[in-house]
Amino acid sequence: MTVANETEGSKRAGLGEVGRYLEDYAVGQKFRSGRLQIVQERMKMFAAEFDPQPFHLDEEAARDTIFKGLVASGWYTAAVTMRLLVESDLKPAGGIVGAGADELRWPRPVQPGDELRIESEVLEMRPSRSRPDQGLIKVRTTTLNQNDEAVQIVVANLVVPRRSTRDGAV
Amino acid sequence: MTVANETEGSKRAGLGEVGRYLEDYAVGQKFRSGRLQIVQERMKMFAAEFDPQPFHLDEEAARDTIFKGLVASGWYTAAVTMRLLVESDLKPAGGIVGAGADELRWPRPVQPGDELRIESEVLEMRPSRSRPDQGLIKVRTTTLNQNDEAVQIVVANLVVPRRSTRDGAV
Repeated sequence: MTVANETEGSKRAGLGEVGRYLEDYAVGQKFRSGRLQIVQERMKMFAAEFDPQPFHLDEEAARDTIFKGLVASGWYTAAVTMRLLVESDLKPAGGIVGAGADELRWPRPVQPGDELRIESEVLEMRPSRSRPDQGLIKVRTTTLNQNDEAVQIVVANLVVPRRSTRDGAV
Repeated sequence: MTVANETEGSKRAGLGEVGRYLEDYAVGQKFRSGRLQIVQERMKMFAAEFDPQPFHLDEEAARDTIFKGLVASGWYTAAVTMRLLVESDLKPAGGIVGAGADELRWPRPVQPGDELRIESEVLEMRPSRSRPDQGLIKVRTTTLNQNDEAVQIVVANLVVPRRSTRDGAV
């Protein structure tokens, strides 16, 4: 695919098809996702593989724990959030590549049946110091349940390509 | 189980069976885990469910991406790290309950076949301000590959029970 085609494609699809470059983001931009329902059996399978603790595995055993009932592993919430982010309109060209997160919080546990969605906001953006063809955007993603209560807040630093270098303008 | 039994059990098993209370932790304590090998098919299944992007899904497509090859989703690395932490000797009484993380970094991607292990260190500990029966420990967990290179660093805040209140000493 040539650069000309990419630019055309970007305009045609509102940047959705080929994705956004650093220059296409702006501080304050917001992105949303659809909803994803938490299925108890899947949530427990994840816990059995990655976070095998009573409050994530078994309703009965969970009652006697700090959570007083079955809740999702925070890492399951994080994984589901990533899925929602991939499907959201954030779409950096080159994919969602995280360098890491400045903050990750789970203010409230996720329970079976919850319907999750995300709201993301661009907080900062800057060119990379070491790679002229790359930039970084700092994005806060809040994962909300069906009552609009935050279940996860993550402030992540994402690597995104720069348009100018790709266009050969440098 | 009575408190007396718990204390006996703690001594017998080096705190491994019933777990540690806030008072059992100290700044500078270190904990290690066994090793877990990353299996390509499982890593790709995780990506298909939670992080469906070319560099996590397909060797061929991954070659043309920023990673130049197939790599694990950072959230897969995080999930595997949680598994290693659950199996490590950290073992808070009441389980590993994370309030969140101050920092999460992936300095180097995980590749199929990598063998991961963790090293955790207690950085801070304090009683909870709102819950006299609880405390918080801040733990840095570094996930290392078979070459002792860090693939993930997370500084997490964990909720742990306090022994004094449980003993009825307050």
